[in-house]
Parts: sequence; C-alpha cells; structure tokens
Amino acid sequence: MKPVEGNKSTREVKVVTRVLAVNERMAEQNRRRFAEKGVFVINVMSSPGSGKTTTLQKTLERIMPGIRAAVIVGDVSTTHDADRLAVTGAPVVQVNTDAFGGDCHLAAHVIEKAADAIDLDAIDLLIIENVGNLVCPAEFDIGEDARVVVLSVTEGEDKPVKYPTMFRLCDAALLNKIDLLPHLDYDKAQAVGYIQQVHPGMPIFEISARSGEGLEAWINWLREKIRVKLAARSK
Amino acid sequence: MKPVEGNKSTREVKVVTRVLAVNERMAEQNRRRFAEKGVFVINVMSSPGSGKTTTLQKTLERIMPGIRAAVIVGDVSTTHDADRLAVTGAPVVQVNTDAFGGDCHLAAHVIEKAADAIDLDAIDLLIIENVGNLVCPAEFDIGEDARVVVLSVTEGEDKPVKYPTMFRLCDAALLNKIDLLPHLDYDKAQAVGYIQQVHPGMPIFEISARSGEGLEAWINWLREKIRVKLAARSK
Repeated sequence: MKPVEGNKSTREVKVVTRVLAVNERMAEQNRRRFAEKGVFVINVMSSPGSGKTTTLQKTLERIMPGIRAAVIVGDVSTTHDADRLAVTGAPVVQVNTDAFGGDCHLAAHVIEKAADAIDLDAIDLLIIENVGNLVCPAEFDIGEDARVVVLSVTEGEDKPVKYPTMFRLCDAALLNKIDLLPHLDYDKAQAVGYIQQVHPGMPIFEISARSGEGLEAWINWLREKIRVKLAARSK
Repeated sequence: MKPVEGNKSTREVKVVTRVLAVNERMAEQNRRRFAEKGVFVINVMSSPGSGKTTTLQKTLERIMPGIRAAVIVGDVSTTHDADRLAVTGAPVVQVNTDAFGGDCHLAAHVIEKAADAIDLDAIDLLIIENVGNLVCPAEFDIGEDARVVVLSVTEGEDKPVKYPTMFRLCDAALLNKIDLLPHLDYDKAQAVGYIQQVHPGMPIFEISARSGEGLEAWINWLREKIRVKLAARSK
C-alpha cells in the first residue's frame, strides 16, 4: 500500500490547464445567455447506471407542464436515454460524444451548440444529463446554476470519499434505488456520513426512481431553486 | 433528438494524440518487462461500484498461493480498496491519482512506477484494478496481457452499447451481482445480446462476487490464460 507519485510532464499539465481555462470562459457565456432567458439550468451527473434517466423521467412527469422543461442528454454513444426522456413530451437534444473522440464529459462549447437547438424563450428549466462518469464531468463547468449527483445504493458506501471532487462541487445528492436496500449489505448511515464528510451540509434526498418513493422532497427542492430564479427574472 | 457535432479544435486533438502515442510506447516497455519476468498482467475495469474489489478479493482467495499474485489498485482518492485486497495476503500497491491532478484512468507511466514496488520475480500474476470509469481507462494501454470489464446487473442492460470502446477492447466480461436479479427489472438476454453486438464471441461470465456463484468458470478462464503464459516462459 505504497502511494505512488505520478511523473506527468509540466507541458501536459499546462495544456490541460489551458483547455480548462477556455472551457471556463465558454461556461460563463452560457451562464449569461441562460440568465438573460431566465432559464434555470441543472447539471445531473453520476456513474453509469445509477438511474439518472429514470429519475429525470419521473421528475419531468411530475413538474410538467407547470414548469416548462427541456433536456440535453450526453452519452458516448446511442440515443437510448433521449428516446426514454422524449416520451415525457419535453424537447430533448442528444449529444453523442463519439462524434468528437468519445469524450467522457460534456464541455461548455458542446452545451452552447446543443442549446441552439432549443427555444430558450419557451422554457423555464434546462436539464443536462451528463455522460455517466464520476470523475471528469465534475471538472467541466458548463454554465449551469446547480449540480446534482445521483448515487445508487448498489454502488457501495464509499464513492463520496473515492470521488470527492464530484461530491464537493455538487449542490445536492440523490441516493437512488433505496427500494433495493433490503437485498443489499449497505450501511446507509456510513454512506450519508461520507457525503457529509466531503461536503458538510449538502442536501441528500433518498429516492427510488422506480417506485417513486422520496421524489417529492427532491422535486420541492428543485421547484424552490427554479422559483428563486424566475423571481429574479420578473424583477 | 438532434445529434450535435463538436467543434473541438485541431490543436487540442493533436495534443491528445501525442499523449496517447507517448503512453503507447511506455505500455510496450511495460509489456516487455512483464514478459521477461513471466508475469501475466490483467487490467480490470468497470463503472464505480460494480464490485471489482469484491470480485478480485474472492478470486485471490481461490487462486492463491498456487498462483502467486500481486495487485496494483487505482483510485482517485482513499486506500479503501487496497486495504480490502491486502487482507488476502497479496502484495498491494495503491495508486491515488489525486496526487497528480485526479486522473480518471491509470496510464502506462504510472504502472511502470507502481511495478517498481513489487518483486516481479516472486509473482505469476499482476492484477491491475483500474479507476472506476467506463470511458477513459479503455483508451490507455498499460502493458497488460488481458482486459476484463465488470458490469453490474444493477447498472441496466445498455451499458455495452453506450460505452462500446470498453466492451470492444476487453477480452472477457463479468456480469456481476446476479444474486440481485430477482429484485430487478433486468433483461439479462438483452444485456448479453448488447455485449455480443459490440464484441461478438467475447466470453461472458455471470457471477455473484458476494455469494461466490459462477466464480469458478471465470477463474478457470483466468487460470488457463496464466498457464499459457507460464508455459511460454519455461520454453
């Protein structure tokens, strides 16, 4: 158990820093554009298979049409998630990152382009379902107002401490698939403790997207965030 | 559902290509070094929380000491997995990528350095547990002889088509957590079909690392791979 130091070259680090700086500028442009249109933007991130799409599907069913929503979905490949979300009636734009090298995250310039395909005047909420990945998406600001991480209880308790950047940068965590708890050796108190250790005070919503359990508290949190944003627009 | 094309600059793509070319050379160096020592190297990849560590723990318990094994474990942060694997008595080296920018994968130069901490003359098998991520680790050759992807049935059926590079490059797939099948809406035939669609003929082992079910077939496959390598050494 000897920790090993990397010997990544300074040159490479410089290049990465430059890419991130360009992304940061484009993210700010996106943020201004969404603010002018009074659109609340939420960036939803998680491991592959944590239940992001089902959670968003159930969320859209409960908040539309009162809240007018659209979705940008990021995947390396396929339109499976977009197809599932389109059933809700929300406009859905699928981004396939394999069109440009199989990127493991959505970057600000990709969101800028995807947003062109959406009538921003006609919506209050833009949901961005990021590529399934607990590492890279956290490093790319895309101009969102809030970040949410979905964590399935089937993934074990320790993901918050193993992927701390994601949990530190998010504004809320959804602990999903709690309907499976009776069948797992899962210490929920430990998982919640790990989240609070990395990000003290972050709201945690225990949900089952499949059964619908717990969705109300999460949706109330989201509604309140949107309400504050819309109130600012009408000033 | 309009696919969006990225406008990633040529400059950025060139830099990424250069990084990958350097990695490729270092991976070949690793491969020669491991071959000279007669060590079979397996790179184990998956989403976060698919059960890699439990699978490897149970595998080590069954193959040691007949097969002398060591493990390199990659995580962004913590030594949780290394602590769990060290219980088996195998030498374990933990790599924490947050020491060099929070990398989302293990690269060949990191493996080169980590391997310095292991007595390669004293082992037959080096297991590398990669960072939990279905995208990036597939792109980095680290000098391994075989690649294995672990897929939990709780992640849904469609991960092979959503992350095709990973499944295309791997030599075997472990479909884990099958003890949970009675509690899930999971179409196993569809999942297997997706794997075969992306990588026709790839061996698929259905296992429950928790209960031990199905581990024997996977371990027989691994034993046979190691046997062939050791036979080549003794020539």
